[in-house]
Amino acid sequence: MSLLVVGSIALDDVESPAGRVEDALGGATCYFAVAAQYFTQVRAVGVVGDDFPAEHLDFLAARGIDIAGIAREPGRSFRWGGRYHESLNDRDTLFTELGVFEAFDPTLPESYLDSEYVFLANIHPSLQQRVLEQAVRRRFVAMDTMNFWIEGTREELDHTLARVDALVINDAEAHLLTGTTNLVHAARAIRSMGPETVIIKRGEFGALLFDSQGIFAAPAFPLEEVRDPTGAGDTFAGGFMGALARAGSVDAASLRKAVIYGSAMASFCVERFSLDRLRELTRDEIESRFEAFYTLTRF
Amino acid sequence: MSLLVVGSIALDDVESPAGRVEDALGGATCYFAVAAQYFTQVRAVGVVGDDFPAEHLDFLAARGIDIAGIAREPGRSFRWGGRYHESLNDRDTLFTELGVFEAFDPTLPESYLDSEYVFLANIHPSLQQRVLEQAVRRRFVAMDTMNFWIEGTREELDHTLARVDALVINDAEAHLLTGTTNLVHAARAIRSMGPETVIIKRGEFGALLFDSQGIFAAPAFPLEEVRDPTGAGDTFAGGFMGALARAGSVDAASLRKAVIYGSAMASFCVERFSLDRLRELTRDEIESRFEAFYTLTRF
Repeated sequence: MSLLVVGSIALDDVESPAGRVEDALGGATCYFAVAAQYFTQVRAVGVVGDDFPAEHLDFLAARGIDIAGIAREPGRSFRWGGRYHESLNDRDTLFTELGVFEAFDPTLPESYLDSEYVFLANIHPSLQQRVLEQAVRRRFVAMDTMNFWIEGTREELDHTLARVDALVINDAEAHLLTGTTNLVHAARAIRSMGPETVIIKRGEFGALLFDSQGIFAAPAFPLEEVRDPTGAGDTFAGGFMGALARAGSVDAASLRKAVIYGSAMASFCVERFSLDRLRELTRDEIESRFEAFYTLTRF
Repeated sequence: MSLLVVGSIALDDVESPAGRVEDALGGATCYFAVAAQYFTQVRAVGVVGDDFPAEHLDFLAARGIDIAGIAREPGRSFRWGGRYHESLNDRDTLFTELGVFEAFDPTLPESYLDSEYVFLANIHPSLQQRVLEQAVRRRFVAMDTMNFWIEGTREELDHTLARVDALVINDAEAHLLTGTTNLVHAARAIRSMGPETVIIKRGEFGALLFDSQGIFAAPAFPLEEVRDPTGAGDTFAGGFMGALARAGSVDAASLRKAVIYGSAMASFCVERFSLDRLRELTRDEIESRFEAFYTLTRF
């Protein structure tokens, strides 16, 4: 099934206790698309500046990702810099330079208009709605958001939430969106805003899925080494949406399996800097890690 | 199978956003014993002062807990006061008055000496060893500890660790004990200190079991309301050890099921103040919550 992702494409400077990278490929669209393309055909929408290395776009295209929706505009690419602390749970944002991303206005190529599975990464909620207006054949839409939009553009965000099937956010965002730290209450409140399915990501503590069937708790995969948590949430979303699109189903069983595929992909992501681990995966490795989640959780 | 617990018996003052209690029954021995007696016969060792309400001991005895090992000494009972913050993850200790617990020297009644399952709650590691010397028929010993002993009596703690089968601690203690925040590395380091089985509790994020078979991740049960987290860890240990003693087995499958029973008991514990929720449970409620963990984790 066709899977569309709309969001940022970035060049990241990242420091962690395990090392550092500069001008590394990043952004929600890239993490999502590279994770999802192991499962299904992916169509990417985003914008880069005229400083963006051709090799990064070549890499995405070589992975079979449709990049017809990635525009190159005059100006600087979106750049983000961050530094992770010892525990890797906290980070400082060192800089955010929006560049051409500031005027991002997602326009879907004609060939994308029949996309059935849609992921709206973390962008202005009005832009997220612009995508929905174009993707008229959409069947299942999931979205992300962040504190900036929750606090600054709540009305537009509410309109977008009312039109999507799933919200994928982290626990701090769920708290901010609903005013409660109790995740059962928070998920119920979010479901009343529109999305029937709510996934609350908790980093190293895993993810919770709330849907019409109840609650599903997925652990994070216990890793020997975490080098760079950047992009783990978008990679999770890529595995999740990719697995759903591959299954061609969004029933309760498919949603649960998709959460595990998302968790598996996120666990690979953080093992190396940038998208480095995601570049080299085999389908066997992915299925093996999915199986490892059985072993991890069976009693 | 006979299950022995040695630890504190306290009168607690607790405040949380959900309310407050004063002089409420508390202490590791009580939480553990009341949780465990739903599974097996429990023998309790502890000390109380001459101010300790007879009704509390009567309650323990009425639940079928053997209280022959609970001594009453002249002086004040151990008292602890704490206040939980809005998120319930953080608490301030308002006071700790050791009273008669300061001179606690656990002596097992003759009738306890054949105990096969033993839980050494959080007391001085030398006292934990004193118990081991008496419990000569022990078959499976689990222990708890805390930052105070890890930092202050490391040598004695290492001696105790070398003699037990399982360590049940929280993530902050695992970090302090091993110097690493990575729980896979921490568990490996702890297993090299003696205990073949390591359980790391993570509060609302569940628990991880590390044993010779690998890693098992158990979620915490998502609750609508948490009123008082006091005693959840000891209640977890009570459910865990009670289930093992009932099964009469400590193989990998039994350990995993026992972790779920521990998690189920802890989830009940925090629903009310003090031991109030644990007082009124039925075996059907416990089995239903155990089953709910299947629903929560199956994919």
